[in-house]
Amino acid sequence: MSEPNPAPNNLTPAVLDELRTLVGPHGLIAEQNQLQTYECDGLTNFRTMPGAVVLPRTTAEVADVVSLCAKYAVPFVARGAGTGLSGGSLPTEHCIVIGLSRLNRILSVDLENSRVHVEPGVTNTGVTSAVKAEGYFYAPDPSSQTVCTIGGNLAENAGGAHCLKYGFTTTHVLGCEVVLPSGEVMWFGSEHGVVDTPGYDLAGVFIGSEGTLGVATRAVLRVLRKPEAVQTLLAAFDTTTGAAQTVSDIIASGMLPSAMEMMDRISITAAEAAVHAGYPECTALLLVELDGPLAEVNAQMVQVREFCTKNGAWEQRLAQTDAERALVWKGRKAAFAAMGRVSPNYIVQDGVIPRTALPRVLARMDEMSAETGLRIANVFHAGDGNLHPMVLYDRTIEGEEDRALILSYDILRLCVDAGGSITGEHGVGREKQCVMSYQFHEPDLATMQRVRRAFDPQNIANPEKLFPTPRLCGERRHGAYIPHPVEAAGIAEVF
Amino acid sequence: MSEPNPAPNNLTPAVLDELRTLVGPHGLIAEQNQLQTYECDGLTNFRTMPGAVVLPRTTAEVADVVSLCAKYAVPFVARGAGTGLSGGSLPTEHCIVIGLSRLNRILSVDLENSRVHVEPGVTNTGVTSAVKAEGYFYAPDPSSQTVCTIGGNLAENAGGAHCLKYGFTTTHVLGCEVVLPSGEVMWFGSEHGVVDTPGYDLAGVFIGSEGTLGVATRAVLRVLRKPEAVQTLLAAFDTTTGAAQTVSDIIASGMLPSAMEMMDRISITAAEAAVHAGYPECTALLLVELDGPLAEVNAQMVQVREFCTKNGAWEQRLAQTDAERALVWKGRKAAFAAMGRVSPNYIVQDGVIPRTALPRVLARMDEMSAETGLRIANVFHAGDGNLHPMVLYDRTIEGEEDRALILSYDILRLCVDAGGSITGEHGVGREKQCVMSYQFHEPDLATMQRVRRAFDPQNIANPEKLFPTPRLCGERRHGAYIPHPVEAAGIAEVF
Repeated sequence: MSEPNPAPNNLTPAVLDELRTLVGPHGLIAEQNQLQTYECDGLTNFRTMPGAVVLPRTTAEVADVVSLCAKYAVPFVARGAGTGLSGGSLPTEHCIVIGLSRLNRILSVDLENSRVHVEPGVTNTGVTSAVKAEGYFYAPDPSSQTVCTIGGNLAENAGGAHCLKYGFTTTHVLGCEVVLPSGEVMWFGSEHGVVDTPGYDLAGVFIGSEGTLGVATRAVLRVLRKPEAVQTLLAAFDTTTGAAQTVSDIIASGMLPSAMEMMDRISITAAEAAVHAGYPECTALLLVELDGPLAEVNAQMVQVREFCTKNGAWEQRLAQTDAERALVWKGRKAAFAAMGRVSPNYIVQDGVIPRTALPRVLARMDEMSAETGLRIANVFHAGDGNLHPMVLYDRTIEGEEDRALILSYDILRLCVDAGGSITGEHGVGREKQCVMSYQFHEPDLATMQRVRRAFDPQNIANPEKLFPTPRLCGERRHGAYIPHPVEAAGIAEVF
Repeated sequence: MSEPNPAPNNLTPAVLDELRTLVGPHGLIAEQNQLQTYECDGLTNFRTMPGAVVLPRTTAEVADVVSLCAKYAVPFVARGAGTGLSGGSLPTEHCIVIGLSRLNRILSVDLENSRVHVEPGVTNTGVTSAVKAEGYFYAPDPSSQTVCTIGGNLAENAGGAHCLKYGFTTTHVLGCEVVLPSGEVMWFGSEHGVVDTPGYDLAGVFIGSEGTLGVATRAVLRVLRKPEAVQTLLAAFDTTTGAAQTVSDIIASGMLPSAMEMMDRISITAAEAAVHAGYPECTALLLVELDGPLAEVNAQMVQVREFCTKNGAWEQRLAQTDAERALVWKGRKAAFAAMGRVSPNYIVQDGVIPRTALPRVLARMDEMSAETGLRIANVFHAGDGNLHPMVLYDRTIEGEEDRALILSYDILRLCVDAGGSITGEHGVGREKQCVMSYQFHEPDLATMQRVRRAFDPQNIANPEKLFPTPRLCGERRHGAYIPHPVEAAGIAEVF
């Protein structure tokens, strides 16, 4: 693969001066050592230095910066807390990173209509904190929720353990103010939080568009009443099939738990080593959380326990206090970070499969692990078939990182083959561009590109993300990345 | 306003011949007297004869027809059962109507994954019928559900009385096969019913796009388990404020009833005259339906009744059997059609307001009724602030139809002024184009137009709908329609 042409640098010193005038000297970062903070997000094995970082304080400032970008064709990348796992806020060369951390006000709380109006820099848990005393909460709960921001949640259509019952971010955003790539400011959905608005569902297409259609500067979120009761059951199984069958039985019975999480043996071991949650040593751990009126939760938990018993659970623990429940969740929420306890390096993946394909896909993953000699740990949102396989490897062993990467993409292809998808909640970003053409046919991608151009004809809003590009698929930070044959074929199909 | 140029007629005899070859002689209607069936939908005061009607039997036939339309720039309008209330499937001059009634197969039922795969001509209740025996149902329930089809439900993002709890069509469609205006066929969302897919949410923007982005030829729908218990309470109030406050109290308590409907005195009288539902004579009738586990429903119904009593309900009737419940709903579902009992003519409108604005908006509607001398009947989905005001009039009185129409648009403007929207579930279609520019600013409409062009650069998919056009706003079947000053100004803003 030949070296691509270098990206043009339209961010000249003169444009930088204009930028400084717009946001003030304290709103601009252009020193190399300070810019380093922004060279990657949660996907740390991809790094690019931005041309500049701006930290606007108002919608008007964001609009001014984006207008400037439009005028000079300078690419921009919006950034929240930088916790994304797919490289969605990874800078592109000579771009302006628009950091939204200063837009962090809760503008209004209207509990009579169950609405909270926020700026994008407010953290996910910040929304719940604002309404907790009155008995409300904000439902989407990505694992990074104490740090990650609403703007990033919109960009990635963030989910979390409880989206089985409550749905993704898109379900909870009633409207958002967006700065378009032209610099124009508009509302998608309803500023007043009305549920349905006429015309195209532009909020729908914007949410989850990974920063490629504009920058959200405000959002009207729906908050929910805290349920009367919450109970969490932890059940230990000796087979993955037993745990998976329990999940199917629960759903088939008509119950909708607020969460159903599974962890495999490696994940359990790692979580135990890291946070001492007191998990039983088993092959598959199932965590079922029910919430709702106490009478309902009690009645349903009896049924859940019967299913667990029927499918071979040899230990069941019911957490009923907040403290007990917090301990159960602590292990699950720490599972990604805990992987460092059992492996020097790891890649977190994020695929989706039809729930009923779980045993089949897991069996194939075991084979793939044996074939490659690389361990795969698994943590799932089992209720909606969202897998988080983690490929464990050692970067110091020659070639192992590349083999791990190839395996992780092969797992995503396996998900697609099973009728699933290459991402449940982390997004495509930079990480999964290579498998986009395995998921989608050329006309699908072309249609998405036309939608992109409808918003961003100059391709300046988070370019080089989401869509497959040969340049990025051939490129790796550590040089010698050899494209996988399927992947290379996929790219050739499109371009 | 000057007369617009006549639409070009690209549907020449030669193109008609090609069309006949594609769908066979029995798949084409081109006789004037047979075409009359298709000259309007549920919005009967707008009528246009189509150039031809085709009745394809497969996706491939739909794609062939649309490809032909693309080749010769012939406009096409997809049509399900023709029950839409905003003129969404009203033909445009010299267009081809694509009737989807023959694409009426249920392709597969996969209850293990709660999915049903259907063609667009399947009726809404047809989906529930296919899964009822196994204890499942399809949630969206427009009043026309026994007749209207899934294709039309997708086009309009249909709701219904139970969308307060269950959400609109968009919540229940996991994927759909679409023939784009180019004739290309593709899947938006997941063919296999996986919940989240990467890239833009094209299913999201397609659903509710009123036939302007393509034709759905298949859909994967989510079906739900029938709840264990359903109870319906009918409560009679002497003031609208009492009923509205009860709705607010119920929501504020954290309950989410499956439906909360309100009817005013005129609607009650009309429904009684038509179907003898045995409703009490009162100013405001509130219908609250709870569903879920029996224990939960029992506990919550006690609370609902307390709120009703507190807010002055002088009669409460609890329907607990299917038969009792059916009678309660019969009056509500018949309310639109029953209007003929109390008025020779009427216009059904469909606006949305923040739930808490209900008393204020109703008070203003009373004033508007007094000012114009025209009666306004009201039926609402009160839980989500979706109003269905009906303006009653007599066509035989000179000028009254135009005054009724102006009043009905003024009501929609009132909804917008209250922070709401001009349609909750009926769509904009042809009927509400005039008020689109009151709801949206020019950049909003321009953005939607760019999205439209991304799908349909030739503007052949259901053109002259959804977006405001001066031609349509100045035009009426009965000639002398005088544009309202605000409306005229709105148009001028855009064009």
